[in-house]
Amino acid sequence: MLDQKMEIIVEHVYKEILNQLSRQNNSQHTVSQEKEALTRAQLAKYIDHTLLRPDATEAEILQLCREAQEYGFATVCVNPIWVKLCSDQLAGSGVQVCSVIGFPLGASTTCLKVEEAKRAVSDGALEIDMVINVGKLLGKDFSFVYNDIRRVVETSEPALVKVILETCLLNDEQKVAACAIVKKAGAHFVKTSTGFNRAGATVADVTLMRQVVGQEMGVKAAGGIRNYDTAVAMIRAGADRLGTSSSVEIVKAR
Amino acid sequence: MLDQKMEIIVEHVYKEILNQLSRQNNSQHTVSQEKEALTRAQLAKYIDHTLLRPDATEAEILQLCREAQEYGFATVCVNPIWVKLCSDQLAGSGVQVCSVIGFPLGASTTCLKVEEAKRAVSDGALEIDMVINVGKLLGKDFSFVYNDIRRVVETSEPALVKVILETCLLNDEQKVAACAIVKKAGAHFVKTSTGFNRAGATVADVTLMRQVVGQEMGVKAAGGIRNYDTAVAMIRAGADRLGTSSSVEIVKAR
Repeated sequence: MLDQKMEIIVEHVYKEILNQLSRQNNSQHTVSQEKEALTRAQLAKYIDHTLLRPDATEAEILQLCREAQEYGFATVCVNPIWVKLCSDQLAGSGVQVCSVIGFPLGASTTCLKVEEAKRAVSDGALEIDMVINVGKLLGKDFSFVYNDIRRVVETSEPALVKVILETCLLNDEQKVAACAIVKKAGAHFVKTSTGFNRAGATVADVTLMRQVVGQEMGVKAAGGIRNYDTAVAMIRAGADRLGTSSSVEIVKAR
Repeated sequence: MLDQKMEIIVEHVYKEILNQLSRQNNSQHTVSQEKEALTRAQLAKYIDHTLLRPDATEAEILQLCREAQEYGFATVCVNPIWVKLCSDQLAGSGVQVCSVIGFPLGASTTCLKVEEAKRAVSDGALEIDMVINVGKLLGKDFSFVYNDIRRVVETSEPALVKVILETCLLNDEQKVAACAIVKKAGAHFVKTSTGFNRAGATVADVTLMRQVVGQEMGVKAAGGIRNYDTAVAMIRAGADRLGTSSSVEIVKAR
Protein backbone atom coordinates (compact mmCIF):
# COMPACT_ATOMS: atom_id res chain seq x y z
CA MET A 1 0.00 0.00 0.00
CA LEU A 2 2.69 2.40 0.98
CA ASP A 3 6.12 1.91 -0.53
CA GLN A 4 6.69 4.00 -3.68
CA LYS A 5 3.45 5.92 -3.26
CA MET A 6 4.87 7.62 -0.18
CA GLU A 7 7.25 9.79 -2.13
CA ILE A 8 4.37 11.03 -4.29
CA ILE A 9 2.23 11.71 -1.23
CA VAL A 10 5.04 13.62 0.43
CA GLU A 11 5.65 15.77 -2.64
CA HIS A 12 1.95 16.48 -2.87
CA VAL A 13 1.68 17.43 0.79
CA TYR A 14 4.77 19.58 0.50
CA LYS A 15 3.31 21.66 -2.35
CA GLU A 16 -0.01 22.00 -0.57
CA ILE A 17 1.69 23.19 2.60
CA LEU A 18 3.84 25.77 0.86
CA ASN A 19 0.72 27.11 -0.84
CA GLN A 20 -1.10 27.31 2.46
CA LEU A 21 1.84 29.05 4.09
CA SER A 22 1.99 31.72 1.42
CA ARG A 23 -1.75 32.45 1.74
CA GLN A 24 -2.21 32.15 5.46
CA ASN A 25 -0.53 34.82 7.54
CA ASN A 26 -3.23 36.26 9.72
CA SER A 27 -5.05 33.40 11.33
CA GLN A 28 -2.55 32.92 14.17
CA HIS A 29 -2.91 36.27 15.86
CA THR A 30 -6.09 35.48 17.77
CA VAL A 31 -4.46 32.33 19.11
CA SER A 32 -1.43 34.34 20.22
CA GLN A 33 -3.48 36.79 22.24
CA GLU A 34 -5.25 33.99 24.04
CA LYS A 35 -1.94 32.26 24.88
CA GLU A 36 -0.63 35.43 26.52
CA ALA A 37 -3.25 35.10 29.22
CA LEU A 38 -1.77 31.81 30.50
CA THR A 39 -1.44 31.50 34.26
CA ARG A 40 1.66 29.96 35.79
CA ALA A 41 -0.22 26.70 36.34
CA GLN A 42 -1.43 26.66 32.75
CA LEU A 43 2.07 27.34 31.47
CA ALA A 44 3.45 24.50 33.59
CA LYS A 45 1.06 22.11 31.85
CA TYR A 46 2.83 22.83 28.56
CA ILE A 47 6.15 21.64 29.90
CA ASP A 48 7.97 18.30 29.81
CA HIS A 49 10.41 18.81 32.68
CA THR A 50 13.50 17.31 31.10
CA LEU A 51 16.76 15.79 32.34
CA LEU A 52 18.57 13.72 29.73
CA ARG A 53 22.24 14.32 30.51
CA PRO A 54 24.07 10.96 30.66
CA ASP A 55 25.65 11.96 33.97
CA ALA A 56 22.33 12.67 35.70
CA THR A 57 22.32 10.82 39.02
CA GLU A 58 19.46 9.25 40.95
CA ALA A 59 19.52 12.21 43.34
CA GLU A 60 19.02 14.61 40.44
CA ILE A 61 16.20 12.51 38.99
CA LEU A 62 14.41 12.51 42.35
CA GLN A 63 14.81 16.28 42.50
CA LEU A 64 13.31 16.50 38.99
CA CYS A 65 10.26 14.53 40.18
CA ARG A 66 9.80 16.76 43.22
CA GLU A 67 9.94 19.89 41.06
CA ALA A 68 7.47 18.41 38.58
CA GLN A 69 4.97 17.81 41.37
CA GLU A 70 5.55 21.19 42.97
CA TYR A 71 4.98 23.17 39.78
CA GLY A 72 2.57 20.79 38.05
CA PHE A 73 4.55 20.12 34.89
CA ALA A 74 2.94 17.83 32.30
CA THR A 75 5.65 15.16 32.54
CA VAL A 76 9.19 14.43 33.55
CA CYS A 77 11.19 13.48 30.46
CA VAL A 78 14.03 11.07 31.24
CA ASN A 79 16.24 8.36 29.81
CA PRO A 80 14.87 4.77 29.94
CA ILE A 81 17.01 3.78 32.92
CA TRP A 82 15.05 6.22 35.13
CA VAL A 83 11.48 5.53 33.96
CA LYS A 84 10.63 3.00 36.66
CA LEU A 85 11.99 5.20 39.45
CA CYS A 86 10.03 8.21 38.18
CA SER A 87 6.82 6.20 37.78
CA ASP A 88 7.09 5.02 41.36
CA GLN A 89 7.80 8.54 42.61
CA LEU A 90 5.01 10.16 40.62
CA ALA A 91 2.24 7.59 41.02
CA GLY A 92 -1.05 9.39 41.63
CA SER A 93 0.51 12.84 41.29
CA GLY A 94 -0.98 13.75 37.91
CA VAL A 95 2.54 14.19 36.49
CA GLN A 96 3.21 11.61 33.77
CA VAL A 97 6.52 9.98 32.86
CA CYS A 98 7.93 10.49 29.37
CA SER A 99 10.74 8.22 28.12
CA VAL A 100 12.99 8.94 25.18
CA ILE A 101 13.50 6.10 22.69
CA GLY A 102 16.30 5.60 20.14
CA PHE A 103 17.71 8.74 21.65
CA PRO A 104 19.37 10.95 20.53
CA LEU A 105 20.61 9.49 17.23
CA GLY A 106 17.50 7.59 16.07
CA ALA A 107 19.83 5.17 14.32
CA SER A 108 19.02 1.99 16.19
CA THR A 109 16.94 -0.66 14.43
CA THR A 110 13.15 -0.60 14.41
CA CYS A 111 13.11 -3.81 16.47
CA LEU A 112 15.15 -2.11 19.13
CA LYS A 113 12.99 1.01 19.20
CA VAL A 114 9.93 -1.22 19.56
CA GLU A 115 11.55 -3.23 22.35
CA GLU A 116 12.70 -0.08 24.11
CA ALA A 117 9.22 1.50 23.87
CA LYS A 118 7.57 -1.69 25.12
CA ARG A 119 9.78 -1.76 28.20
CA ALA A 120 9.38 1.96 28.86
CA VAL A 121 5.60 1.56 28.80
CA SER A 122 5.82 -1.48 31.05
CA ASP A 123 8.00 0.59 33.42
CA GLY A 124 5.21 3.17 33.57
CA ALA A 125 5.88 5.67 30.76
CA LEU A 126 2.69 7.22 29.36
CA GLU A 127 4.55 9.32 26.81
CA ILE A 128 7.25 8.17 24.40
CA ASP A 129 9.57 10.60 22.59
CA MET A 130 11.19 8.63 19.77
CA VAL A 131 13.78 9.89 17.30
CA ILE A 132 13.10 9.50 13.59
CA ASN A 133 15.70 7.70 11.48
CA VAL A 134 17.25 10.81 9.93
CA GLY A 135 19.63 8.98 7.60
CA LYS A 136 16.79 6.95 6.10
CA LEU A 137 14.70 10.11 5.69
CA LEU A 138 17.55 11.89 3.89
CA GLY A 139 17.98 8.80 1.71
CA LYS A 140 14.24 9.06 0.85
CA ASP A 141 13.46 5.63 2.29
CA PHE A 142 10.08 6.95 3.41
CA SER A 143 8.63 3.50 3.75
CA PHE A 144 11.30 2.62 6.32
CA VAL A 145 10.69 5.85 8.22
CA TYR A 146 6.94 5.24 8.25
CA ASN A 147 7.25 1.68 9.53
CA ASP A 148 9.83 2.67 12.13
CA ILE A 149 7.31 5.11 13.62
CA ARG A 150 4.19 3.05 13.02
CA ARG A 151 5.54 0.05 14.90
CA VAL A 152 6.51 2.17 17.90
CA VAL A 153 3.05 3.81 17.90
CA GLU A 154 1.31 0.40 17.84
CA THR A 155 3.57 -0.99 20.56
CA SER A 156 3.22 1.99 22.85
CA GLU A 157 -0.57 2.18 23.10
CA PRO A 158 -2.09 3.70 25.18
CA ALA A 159 0.97 5.93 25.58
CA LEU A 160 1.28 9.10 23.47
CA VAL A 161 4.08 9.03 20.92
CA LYS A 162 6.03 12.16 19.97
CA VAL A 163 8.37 11.87 17.02
CA ILE A 164 11.55 13.94 17.06
CA LEU A 165 12.56 15.16 13.61
CA GLU A 166 15.92 16.74 14.56
CA THR A 167 15.02 19.72 12.40
CA CYS A 168 18.55 21.18 12.40
CA LEU A 169 19.59 18.31 10.12
CA LEU A 170 16.68 18.77 7.67
CA ASN A 171 15.80 21.27 4.97
CA ASP A 172 12.20 22.55 4.77
CA GLU A 173 11.14 19.95 2.26
CA GLN A 174 12.46 17.18 4.50
CA LYS A 175 10.72 18.69 7.53
CA VAL A 176 7.41 18.68 5.67
CA ALA A 177 7.97 15.12 4.47
CA ALA A 178 8.76 14.03 8.02
CA CYS A 179 5.64 15.69 9.44
CA ALA A 180 3.46 14.08 6.78
CA ILE A 181 4.92 10.64 7.51
CA VAL A 182 4.60 11.06 11.27
CA LYS A 183 0.96 12.06 10.92
CA LYS A 184 0.18 9.17 8.59
CA ALA A 185 1.87 6.76 11.03
CA GLY A 186 -0.59 7.77 13.74
CA ALA A 187 1.79 9.39 16.18
CA HIS A 188 0.38 12.04 18.48
CA PHE A 189 3.03 14.77 18.28
CA VAL A 190 5.84 15.97 16.08
CA LYS A 191 8.79 17.32 18.06
CA THR A 192 11.52 19.58 16.76
CA SER A 193 14.78 18.47 18.35
CA THR A 194 16.68 16.23 20.71
CA GLY A 195 18.68 19.09 22.23
CA PHE A 196 21.81 17.01 21.54
CA ASN A 197 22.56 18.16 18.00
CA ARG A 198 23.79 21.51 16.75
CA ALA A 199 20.55 23.48 17.16
CA GLY A 200 17.17 23.26 18.86
CA ALA A 201 13.67 24.56 18.23
CA THR A 202 13.05 27.67 16.14
CA VAL A 203 9.85 29.69 15.75
CA ALA A 204 10.00 29.11 11.99
CA ASP A 205 10.17 25.33 12.40
CA VAL A 206 7.33 25.21 14.91
CA THR A 207 5.18 27.34 12.59
CA LEU A 208 5.94 25.08 9.63
CA MET A 209 5.30 21.89 11.60
CA ARG A 210 1.98 23.19 12.94
CA GLN A 211 0.89 24.05 9.39
CA VAL A 212 1.70 20.56 8.14
CA VAL A 213 0.12 18.53 10.91
CA GLY A 214 -2.94 20.73 11.46
CA GLN A 215 -4.82 21.09 14.72
CA GLU A 216 -5.51 17.38 15.39
CA MET A 217 -1.91 16.65 16.34
CA GLY A 218 0.47 18.07 18.88
CA VAL A 219 3.68 20.01 18.19
CA LYS A 220 6.44 19.90 20.78
CA ALA A 221 9.24 22.45 20.71
CA ALA A 222 12.45 21.33 22.41
CA GLY A 223 16.11 22.27 22.49
CA GLY A 224 17.43 25.67 23.53
CA ILE A 225 14.26 26.81 25.36
CA ARG A 226 15.97 28.40 28.34
CA ASN A 227 13.72 31.30 29.32
CA TYR A 228 10.16 32.56 29.50
CA ASP A 229 10.28 34.68 26.33
CA THR A 230 11.47 31.79 24.20
CA ALA A 231 8.86 29.52 25.74
CA VAL A 232 6.06 31.97 24.95
CA ALA A 233 7.39 32.51 21.41
CA MET A 234 7.18 28.76 20.79
CA ILE A 235 3.62 28.58 22.12
CA ARG A 236 2.59 31.52 19.95
CA ALA A 237 4.10 29.80 16.93
CA GLY A 238 1.89 26.79 17.55
CA ALA A 239 3.64 24.56 20.09
CA ASP A 240 1.36 22.86 22.59
CA ARG A 241 4.21 21.18 24.46
CA LEU A 242 7.69 22.37 25.39
CA GLY A 243 10.70 20.27 26.32
CA THR A 244 13.16 22.10 28.54
CA SER A 245 15.49 21.71 31.50
CA SER A 246 14.88 25.35 32.47
CA SER A 247 11.26 24.67 33.41
CA VAL A 248 11.38 26.07 36.94
CA GLU A 249 13.00 29.31 35.79
CA ILE A 250 10.44 29.62 32.98
CA VAL A 251 7.33 29.21 35.13
CA LYS A 252 8.74 31.44 37.86
CA ALA A 253 8.98 34.25 35.30
CA ARG A 254 5.21 34.11 34.84
CA MET B 1 29.77 -11.82 45.69
CA LEU B 2 30.11 -8.36 44.35
CA ASP B 3 27.78 -5.70 45.69
CA GLN B 4 29.31 -3.69 48.56
CA LYS B 5 32.75 -5.17 48.08
CA MET B 6 33.06 -3.36 44.78
CA GLU B 7 33.54 0.02 46.35
CA ILE B 8 36.36 -1.31 48.49
CA ILE B 9 37.98 -2.97 45.50
CA VAL B 10 37.75 0.22 43.48
CA GLU B 11 39.28 2.31 46.24
CA HIS B 12 42.07 -0.22 46.60
CA VAL B 13 42.76 -0.27 42.88
CA TYR B 14 42.65 3.50 42.76
CA LYS B 15 45.35 3.89 45.39
CA GLU B 16 47.50 1.22 43.78
CA ILE B 17 47.22 2.95 40.41
CA LEU B 18 48.12 6.37 41.70
CA ASN B 19 51.16 4.86 43.41
CA GLN B 20 52.19 3.14 40.19
CA LEU B 21 51.74 6.34 38.24
CA SER B 22 53.95 8.34 40.56
CA ARG B 23 56.74 5.71 40.35
CA GLN B 24 56.52 4.73 36.73
CA ASN B 25 57.54 7.37 34.24
CA ASN B 26 60.20 5.78 32.11
CA SER B 27 58.87 2.45 30.92
CA GLN B 28 56.85 3.87 28.05
CA HIS B 29 59.67 5.33 26.02
CA THR B 30 60.76 2.08 24.39
CA VAL B 31 57.17 1.46 23.32
CA SER B 32 56.97 4.95 21.82
CA GLN B 33 60.06 4.48 19.68
CA GLU B 34 58.73 1.25 18.30
CA LYS B 35 55.35 2.81 17.49
CA GLU B 36 57.02 5.54 15.45
CA ALA B 37 58.15 2.95 12.94
CA LEU B 38 54.57 2.07 11.95
CA THR B 39 53.94 1.72 8.23
CA ARG B 40 50.73 3.13 6.73
CA ALA B 41 49.22 -0.37 6.67
CA GLN B 42 50.13 -0.94 10.31
CA LEU B 43 48.68 2.41 11.29
CA ALA B 44 45.43 1.59 9.44
CA LYS B 45 45.06 -1.53 11.58
CA TYR B 46 44.77 0.69 14.65
CA ILE B 47 41.75 2.49 13.27
CA ASP B 48 38.00 1.98 13.64
CA HIS B 49 36.78 3.91 10.59
CA THR B 50 33.83 5.68 12.15
CA LEU B 51 30.60 7.25 10.92
CA LEU B 52 28.01 7.78 13.63
CA ARG B 53 26.25 10.99 12.58
CA PRO B 54 22.47 10.45 12.72
CA ASP B 55 22.13 11.92 9.22
CA ALA B 56 24.58 9.48 7.63
CA THR B 57 22.92 7.99 4.54
CA GLU B 58 23.27 4.55 2.99
CA ALA B 59 25.46 6.06 0.26
CA GLU B 60 27.85 7.43 2.89
CA ILE B 61 27.93 4.10 4.74
CA LEU B 62 28.79 2.26 1.52
CA GLN B 63 31.58 4.78 0.90
CA LEU B 64 32.84 4.12 4.45
CA CYS B 65 33.01 0.39 3.67
CA ARG B 66 34.91 0.99 0.43
CA GLU B 67 37.46 3.18 2.20
CA ALA B 68 37.88 0.63 4.97
CA GLN B 69 38.72 -2.05 2.42
CA GLU B 70 41.00 0.21 0.41
CA TYR B 71 43.10 1.30 3.38
CA GLY B 72 42.75 -1.83 5.51
CA PHE B 73 41.21 -0.28 8.61
CA ALA B 74 40.48 -2.61 11.53
CA THR B 75 36.71 -2.03 11.45
CA VAL B 76 33.96 0.25 10.32
CA CYS B 77 32.20 1.65 13.37
CA VAL B 78 28.52 2.41 12.71
CA ASN B 79 25.11 2.75 14.32
CA PRO B 80 23.05 -0.47 14.70
CA ILE B 81 20.81 0.31 11.73
CA TRP B 82 23.81 -0.08 9.36
CA VAL B 83 25.45 -3.19 10.82
CA LYS B 84 23.78 -5.70 8.49
CA LEU B 85 24.55 -3.64 5.39
CA CYS B 86 28.21 -3.27 6.41
CA SER B 87 28.55 -6.98 7.24
CA ASP B 88 27.22 -7.87 3.81
CA GLN B 89 29.54 -5.38 2.12
CA LEU B 90 32.63 -6.42 4.05
CA ALA B 91 32.19 -10.21 4.14
CA GLY B 92 35.56 -11.84 3.54
CA SER B 93 37.41 -8.52 3.36
CA GLY B 94 39.24 -8.78 6.68
CA VAL B 95 37.56 -5.56 7.82
CA GLN B 96 35.25 -6.20 10.80
CA VAL B 97 32.04 -4.43 11.69
CA CYS B 98 31.80 -2.60 15.01
CA SER B 99 28.39 -1.53 16.34
CA VAL B 100 27.79 1.04 19.04
CA ILE B 101 25.36 0.07 21.82
CA GLY B 102 23.43 2.31 24.23
CA PHE B 103 25.02 5.10 22.28
CA PRO B 104 25.86 7.84 23.03
CA LEU B 105 24.16 8.38 26.41
CA GLY B 106 24.56 4.92 27.97
CA ALA B 107 21.32 5.56 29.85
CA SER B 108 19.16 2.82 28.40
CA THR B 109 18.39 -0.20 30.57
CA THR B 110 20.70 -3.20 30.81
CA CYS B 111 18.03 -5.35 29.15
CA LEU B 112 18.01 -3.01 26.20
CA LYS B 113 21.79 -2.93 25.90
CA VAL B 114 21.81 -6.73 25.97
CA GLU B 115 19.08 -6.95 23.35
CA GLU B 116 20.81 -4.38 21.17
CA ALA B 117 24.15 -6.20 21.42
CA LYS B 118 22.52 -9.55 20.65
CA ARG B 119 20.96 -8.19 17.48
CA ALA B 120 24.13 -6.39 16.40
CA VAL B 121 26.08 -9.64 16.75
CA SER B 122 23.40 -11.52 14.86
CA ASP B 123 23.61 -8.83 12.13
CA GLY B 124 27.33 -9.56 11.86
CA ALA B 125 29.09 -7.23 14.30
CA LEU B 126 32.31 -8.69 15.70
CA GLU B 127 33.03 -5.68 17.87
CA ILE B 128 30.64 -3.91 20.25
CA ASP B 129 31.31 -0.42 21.61
CA MET B 130 28.93 0.06 24.53
CA VAL B 131 28.54 3.15 26.70
CA ILE B 132 28.85 2.79 30.46
CA ASN B 133 25.98 4.08 32.61
CA VAL B 134 27.64 7.32 33.68
CA GLY B 135 24.88 8.42 36.08
CA LYS B 136 25.04 5.12 37.97
CA LEU B 137 28.85 5.36 38.14
CA LEU B 138 28.68 8.90 39.55
CA GLY B 139 26.08 7.67 42.04
CA LYS B 140 28.58 4.93 43.07
CA ASP B 141 26.20 2.15 42.09
CA PHE B 142 29.21 0.08 41.02
CA SER B 143 27.29 -3.14 41.16
CA PHE B 144 24.84 -1.83 38.57
CA VAL B 145 27.68 -0.63 36.35
CA TYR B 146 29.43 -4.01 36.60
CA ASN B 147 26.32 -6.02 35.74
CA ASP B 148 25.42 -3.66 32.89
CA ILE B 149 28.79 -4.41 31.27
CA ARG B 150 29.05 -8.05 32.29
CA ARG B 151 25.74 -8.97 30.70
CA VAL B 152 26.67 -7.29 27.43
CA VAL B 153 30.03 -9.08 27.43
CA GLU B 154 28.36 -12.47 27.99
CA THR B 155 25.74 -11.80 25.33
CA SER B 156 28.20 -10.59 22.72
CA GLU B 157 30.60 -13.53 22.68
CA PRO B 158 32.59 -14.10 20.53
CA ALA B 159 32.53 -10.38 19.70
CA LEU B 160 35.01 -8.04 21.39
CA VAL B 161 33.43 -5.53 23.76
CA LYS B 162 34.82 -2.03 24.23
CA VAL B 163 33.37 0.02 27.05
CA ILE B 164 33.12 3.78 26.58
CA LEU B 165 33.70 5.71 29.80
CA GLU B 166 32.90 9.23 28.49
CA THR B 167 35.95 10.50 30.32
CA CYS B 168 35.02 14.18 29.95
CA LEU B 169 32.23 13.58 32.49
CA LEU B 170 34.48 11.81 35.03
CA ASN B 171 37.15 12.90 37.47
CA ASP B 172 40.34 10.82 37.73
CA GLU B 173 39.03 8.70 40.59
CA GLN B 174 35.90 7.88 38.60
CA LYS B 175 37.98 7.03 35.53
CA VAL B 176 40.04 4.58 37.57
CA ALA B 177 36.94 3.07 39.14
CA ALA B 178 35.39 2.64 35.70
CA CYS B 179 38.50 0.96 34.29
CA ALA B 180 38.67 -1.42 37.23
CA ILE B 181 35.00 -2.37 36.83
CA VAL B 182 35.30 -2.81 33.06
CA LYS B 183 38.30 -5.09 33.51
CA LYS B 184 36.59 -7.14 36.20
CA ALA B 185 33.52 -7.48 33.97
CA GLY B 186 35.63 -9.18 31.32
CA ALA B 187 35.36 -6.60 28.56
CA HIS B 188 38.18 -6.43 26.06
CA PHE B 189 38.80 -2.69 25.78
CA VAL B 190 38.21 0.52 27.65
CA LYS B 191 37.42 3.43 25.35
CA THR B 192 37.67 7.12 26.23
CA SER B 193 34.73 8.89 24.58
CA THR B 194 31.68 8.81 22.39
CA GLY B 195 32.68 11.90 20.46
CA PHE B 196 29.20 13.27 21.18
CA ASN B 197 29.87 14.94 24.51
CA ARG B 198 31.90 18.05 25.32
CA ALA B 199 35.38 16.59 24.85
CA GLY B 200 37.11 13.56 23.39
CA ALA B 201 40.29 11.60 24.06
CA THR B 202 43.27 13.17 25.81
CA VAL B 203 46.81 11.84 26.16
CA ALA B 204 46.48 12.07 29.94
CA ASP B 205 43.34 9.92 29.96
CA VAL B 206 44.78 7.29 27.65
CA THR B 207 47.90 7.09 29.82
CA LEU B 208 45.82 6.71 32.98
CA MET B 209 43.52 4.09 31.43
CA ARG B 210 46.46 2.03 30.15
CA GLN B 211 47.99 2.09 33.63
CA VAL B 212 44.81 0.83 35.23
CA VAL B 213 43.96 -1.96 32.81
CA GLY B 214 47.52 -3.16 32.20
CA GLN B 215 48.74 -4.85 29.03
CA GLU B 216 46.15 -7.64 28.87
CA MET B 217 43.37 -5.31 27.78
CA GLY B 218 42.93 -2.85 24.95
CA VAL B 219 42.61 0.91 25.21
CA LYS B 220 40.71 2.76 22.50
CA ALA B 221 41.10 6.52 22.11
CA ALA B 222 38.18 8.23 20.37
CA GLY B 223 36.73 11.70 19.98
CA GLY B 224 38.62 14.63 18.47
CA ILE B 225 41.33 12.56 16.71
CA ARG B 226 41.39 14.51 13.46
CA ASN B 227 45.00 14.31 12.27
CA TYR B 228 48.12 12.18 12.16
CA ASP B 229 49.93 13.90 15.04
CA THR B 230 47.03 13.39 17.42
CA ALA B 231 46.69 9.77 16.32
CA VAL B 232 50.37 9.08 17.00
CA ALA B 233 50.20 10.88 20.34
CA MET B 234 47.37 8.57 21.41
CA ILE B 235 49.26 5.46 20.33
CA ARG B 236 52.37 6.63 22.19
CA ALA B 237 50.26 7.17 25.30
CA GLY B 238 49.13 3.54 25.18
CA ALA B 239 46.15 3.35 22.80
CA ASP B 240 46.02 0.24 20.65
CA ARG B 241 42.87 1.31 18.83
CA LEU B 242 41.68 4.69 17.57
CA GLY B 243 38.14 5.74 16.72
CA THR B 244 38.01 8.53 14.15
CA SER B 245 36.14 9.82 11.14
CA SER B 246 39.36 11.36 9.78
CA SER B 247 40.92 7.95 9.13
CA VAL B 248 41.77 8.47 5.47
CA GLU B 249 43.45 11.80 6.13
CA ILE B 250 45.40 10.26 9.02
CA VAL B 251 46.81 7.29 7.14
CA LYS B 252 47.59 9.40 4.08
CA ALA B 253 49.83 11.55 6.28
CA ARG B 254 51.98 8.49 6.97
